Amino acid sequence: MSPLDQLIEALRVLPGVGPKSAQRMAYHLLQRDRQGAARLGASIVTAMEKLKHCQRCNSFTEADVCERCLNAQRDPALLCVVEMPADLAMMEQTHTYKGLYYVLMGRISPLDGVGPRELQLEKLIDRASDGVVNEVILATNFTNEGEATAHYVGAVLQARGIKVSRIARGVPVGGELEHTDIGTIAQALVERRSL
Amino acid sequence: MSPLDQLIEALRVLPGVGPKSAQRMAYHLLQRDRQGAARLGASIVTAMEKLKHCQRCNSFTEADVCERCLNAQRDPALLCVVEMPADLAMMEQTHTYKGLYYVLMGRISPLDGVGPRELQLEKLIDRASDGVVNEVILATNFTNEGEATAHYVGAVLQARGIKVSRIARGVPVGGELEHTDIGTIAQALVERRSL
Repeated sequence: MSPLDQLIEALRVLPGVGPKSAQRMAYHLLQRDRQGAARLGASIVTAMEKLKHCQRCNSFTEADVCERCLNAQRDPALLCVVEMPADLAMMEQTHTYKGLYYVLMGRISPLDGVGPRELQLEKLIDRASDGVVNEVILATNFTNEGEATAHYVGAVLQARGIKVSRIARGVPVGGELEHTDIGTIAQALVERRSL
Repeated sequence: MSPLDQLIEALRVLPGVGPKSAQRMAYHLLQRDRQGAARLGASIVTAMEKLKHCQRCNSFTEADVCERCLNAQRDPALLCVVEMPADLAMMEQTHTYKGLYYVLMGRISPLDGVGPRELQLEKLIDRASDGVVNEVILATNFTNEGEATAHYVGAVLQARGIKVSRIARGVPVGGELEHTDIGTIAQALVERRSL
């Protein structure tokens, strides 16, 4: 395979990119933005080499434990569980929450072959059982998958005697955190209810 | 900037990729397909290093002159002008054309800041004036930009005494070669008319 065909083929690993878009992207990079392309190639290589999962919050970080988890200003008794780092970023933007996080890096979704096992919930259970965490706040999406995840995770943690709450259903039903306005997320955080 | 932010930023050089899609792509690569991502990074780096423009047809190749231009089986008296390598690939699939090609790598499009100068038409003029080329077939798209390009390029070549033709308007008006069925393209090639 020529480097061009290899590039077109390789671009298809990106979500939502089919053969035609991969071709268009390859020509665009080669013809219009070689500098940007070189930067992209290097960034991907660097990111894959350097980024790993934080031992405490499971998000992406270069260190063993990320800066947020090491921040002494935050309340270690509160642990907020979100699906993805993008959700964490939205929570942070509300400036309403000063506890710590755990990022599931996904959601229970049987159709995509993601069950409780794939989410490696033992890591979350260990994290929540450190003796310092006093309450786990479930902030997964209000989609079907997010709700199922919240139910399952909530039940597992409660079975271990951990106090669990769910952010309020102020977030529109069927909506995703990433696409919700910050005010609504703040409201849902304040109105969280005990399970 | 962290490697993650750098990756998200770098992904935005891809056409049609905004901040949200870049984020989604980055998480997808990191979480679901590290192997594919490593391959993508390497492919981009390799492609940018190795691929240059063929001295004769202007398409992408590793050698100074590409294999197609060196193929003695093809008729060097015919030169077909297309906008992009994807168009060339469609022409080839018709199995109707045995001449050579010249790839403009774009089209005249004032709105995008691409005028005749940006297309480096001198290279095409030199190529078409080699004394062997007997006819230049214009196979740019039948969009407004493609038609304008055909008119301009045709006039420039005719002014130098070169015989020029345009593939027939069998290709639907407003359509693009890349998305046209092969039979229609073959028809348009057979019915090309002298300018």
